[in-house]
Amino acid sequence: MLQAKLTKVQEKRSKSDPLPPGCAPYTTSNHFKIQPSGSKPKSKRWDHRFSLESLGQIPSPLRMAARAPGQPRLITLGTARPAPQYFPWETLVTTADWNYGGSKSSDTKKSAVMSCGREDKGYPLSVAMNYGYSAGSPQALRFVTEHVELIHDPPYDDWECCMTAGTTSAFEIAFRLFCNRGDYVLFEDHTYSGTMATAKAQGLNVIAVDVDEFGLSATDLDSKLRNWDASKGAKPTLLYTIPTGQNPTGTTQSLERRKAIYQVAEEHDLYIIEDDPYYFIQLGEDNYDTSAPKVPQATPDALLARLPVSYLSLDVSGRVLRMDSTSKILAPGLRCGWVIGSSQVIAKFISQTEVGVLSPSGPSQLMVYKLLDETWGHDGFISWLSYLSSEYRDRRNILLDACNRYIPSEICQWNIPTTGMFFWVKVSVPKHPEAGKDRSPEQLKLFYSEVEDRIFTSACENGVLVSKGSWFAASTEQAPQVCFRMTFAAAPENDLTEAIERFAEAVRKEYRLI
Amino acid sequence: MLQAKLTKVQEKRSKSDPLPPGCAPYTTSNHFKIQPSGSKPKSKRWDHRFSLESLGQIPSPLRMAARAPGQPRLITLGTARPAPQYFPWETLVTTADWNYGGSKSSDTKKSAVMSCGREDKGYPLSVAMNYGYSAGSPQALRFVTEHVELIHDPPYDDWECCMTAGTTSAFEIAFRLFCNRGDYVLFEDHTYSGTMATAKAQGLNVIAVDVDEFGLSATDLDSKLRNWDASKGAKPTLLYTIPTGQNPTGTTQSLERRKAIYQVAEEHDLYIIEDDPYYFIQLGEDNYDTSAPKVPQATPDALLARLPVSYLSLDVSGRVLRMDSTSKILAPGLRCGWVIGSSQVIAKFISQTEVGVLSPSGPSQLMVYKLLDETWGHDGFISWLSYLSSEYRDRRNILLDACNRYIPSEICQWNIPTTGMFFWVKVSVPKHPEAGKDRSPEQLKLFYSEVEDRIFTSACENGVLVSKGSWFAASTEQAPQVCFRMTFAAAPENDLTEAIERFAEAVRKEYRLI
Repeated sequence: MLQAKLTKVQEKRSKSDPLPPGCAPYTTSNHFKIQPSGSKPKSKRWDHRFSLESLGQIPSPLRMAARAPGQPRLITLGTARPAPQYFPWETLVTTADWNYGGSKSSDTKKSAVMSCGREDKGYPLSVAMNYGYSAGSPQALRFVTEHVELIHDPPYDDWECCMTAGTTSAFEIAFRLFCNRGDYVLFEDHTYSGTMATAKAQGLNVIAVDVDEFGLSATDLDSKLRNWDASKGAKPTLLYTIPTGQNPTGTTQSLERRKAIYQVAEEHDLYIIEDDPYYFIQLGEDNYDTSAPKVPQATPDALLARLPVSYLSLDVSGRVLRMDSTSKILAPGLRCGWVIGSSQVIAKFISQTEVGVLSPSGPSQLMVYKLLDETWGHDGFISWLSYLSSEYRDRRNILLDACNRYIPSEICQWNIPTTGMFFWVKVSVPKHPEAGKDRSPEQLKLFYSEVEDRIFTSACENGVLVSKGSWFAASTEQAPQVCFRMTFAAAPENDLTEAIERFAEAVRKEYRLI
Repeated sequence: MLQAKLTKVQEKRSKSDPLPPGCAPYTTSNHFKIQPSGSKPKSKRWDHRFSLESLGQIPSPLRMAARAPGQPRLITLGTARPAPQYFPWETLVTTADWNYGGSKSSDTKKSAVMSCGREDKGYPLSVAMNYGYSAGSPQALRFVTEHVELIHDPPYDDWECCMTAGTTSAFEIAFRLFCNRGDYVLFEDHTYSGTMATAKAQGLNVIAVDVDEFGLSATDLDSKLRNWDASKGAKPTLLYTIPTGQNPTGTTQSLERRKAIYQVAEEHDLYIIEDDPYYFIQLGEDNYDTSAPKVPQATPDALLARLPVSYLSLDVSGRVLRMDSTSKILAPGLRCGWVIGSSQVIAKFISQTEVGVLSPSGPSQLMVYKLLDETWGHDGFISWLSYLSSEYRDRRNILLDACNRYIPSEICQWNIPTTGMFFWVKVSVPKHPEAGKDRSPEQLKLFYSEVEDRIFTSACENGVLVSKGSWFAASTEQAPQVCFRMTFAAAPENDLTEAIERFAEAVRKEYRLI
């Protein structure tokens, strides 16, 4: 199934013009899509949703001039892009794991060597080290566009991709495009604290929407919008969601739930930011038996079959800006990801990038291109993601096994994440030995906060760092609870069990069980 | 002189603790300064100058927790920084020019080979590819801090550096720190269009200050502030200036001028953004004789002696945020520079970076560190800058020679830049054959604009791209003029003379001289 699609990609490439050469060339996803333009309906316009800042964007005459199709003999005294012989670097060579997880065991090579010289064909170092176009280099953008079409196949015609300098930069830009100071934005009731910090820094107010075991609640979303108190300010028009392996709760929205949420968005004309860094970290079922033998790595087709349907794939109106990150699947230090949305929104995104981060780092884009396009190819990339998934599945299972063995289940509850990197451990405060005391609502809130803090501090003293649930709370108005986020992504695998033992000890101490 | 300073750097390093290891470690310039803390007066506070957005910044609890000094046996389940064995890259190797300009001709090596493995000492690839701290990696920040102290030696105590994701990102952040929508900002009357685009995108209004042959006019700056019409809005509190090799006019502010401007800033309590990407591109005197033999490359000490006194070096109050770029002296694709300011401002800059670009690219920081710190060292870096200066001087002289030979001096005037990359060619409209017609002020403005456009278009048709002066105009209220910015940075050296011939032909055609 993947192979059949890849054949089409190859056909498209073989019939296409060569990639545009030179420094910061104009490029667009439209050059790289497999399905011809006009084969699907167009997206809606979002003029009524753009911020003051976004509506004030003006194209740069200097950049427009640099983009103008050059005559063959045009000499430029126009833009101060230094002559590449004055970049000191001559070559950039990386090596990378080739035989990840034994998936290509017949291959005797251990490392792939990826070399790039100043004037190489394909993606010369002289180009990577010069100024870049804000949508990304054609080399990187082509791979990403093909990847998006292979995986998500957006149901409208005029979708496009734009490379980003990482997802934090991308949601900073997205909030600036769609929100003015004082606006309300919808978040999951616990969510990534970095996104909230970005929203709050821009003067935005956060509305927390309930999350249950199937993820963000469509019912609560609808109700919060339907019963919006206009005296507070304008009704929210933007929803930020992490649909897969949600940070911090680890929940993954079911397909039914996604459809229901998209329907609410259609009814209330919401724009959706789909932040999906854990999409490919597929850990398998939640009925996992820790005593069962290890499951082998999935084939690329099997991994693809397991992937959730993204909002981008459901998006008939073009009301979704999907954000893909390389931080959890390649390396966070790249500061290089991509967003996908309708051409109007991507044009605004590019304009906003031009007056800020300008473009992702050239070496980062080059490394991504050399590895994903020239070395692995689309199928090799999927194999890598399957390998990563199997590795993280093993780690999840170790942590799960340790939770089952050490954490007192009469006091704590935890999910079994099927995607991503997070366990969300809820500690029952009503079972606390001091829970019975008479307390005002204020005192009760304080008590919850003290319990959380004591467990956190005592876990630290025991030698394990976890994250307080309250750090991720989108609203201070929620009923108090004590939760901890734990990830199996960072620590050495051998330490995971001991870490849980240490945490469990902190809980037992707080509950006077030792 | 440089050598004596470098000995102190080596002494400081040899007495210092090793650089902090691990992922995104907390770091600050204070760890790396040669002069001990407390040896100079403190900077002023800028609370009264920060924007709403900046005042609303809150430190991230998640990042604070990650920064907490770890116990030796602390296992982290806290932050989702992936285990580095899941980054596919195993090594990153670059080669770079070693014998630049024959400055180290006794050295037989042609290229320096810089290799970095996953778990190398110094700056391991596993760290460079992971999340980074927003002030930069300790490895890069140490070099930059030492470099700043060697070159600028700020006269107040609590200065610090922060790595940036390029200067466009840096001034985006700076405007957000110091300005609210609707504020007025002071710019040179012609200035870099990218900065103006960033300011205007944020809803800022631009006030144009006159520029003469010594650069920005202190008199006009003072007068604009003294006679500020409060009915327009609050008096400007921020000055953005490109003091050296100004873009687009090529002027370099004299020391007297810098002191006078700083004095005006003290009187009106202005904060200054010093954007100085051309600082090290020293082209030599403006009385250059194009028939004289080539001047050899300057020694590092000779280059240092020629550098202008920066605003940072004059800044007794801590009212300057200096921006250094690698785009013109290493490679723009790095998207990696640095800013220097007082600790309060740098703390705000870091907070703003945390909710946006997060950090410069890891590969970029690694490449900068490997080349500048491990390979060249401070003196080698200065030699490189001296080599670059001599190369650009040759290019300037070729362009200057061509201007003298081909451009009709009875119609055009141009400066001889002593720093940077820009020629600013003024075309006298009163000498235009159609200048004598009776025109209303509006018609006259249109006429200037038409003359500019026809010369630009005809130059393009002749095969040379220049930049219209009007693209850089900070205000539409200025008296009209026709100017063109030309740079000798980008085109192949052999094409420079022909480019000027083609431009001159366009001028002659417009003035009916052919």
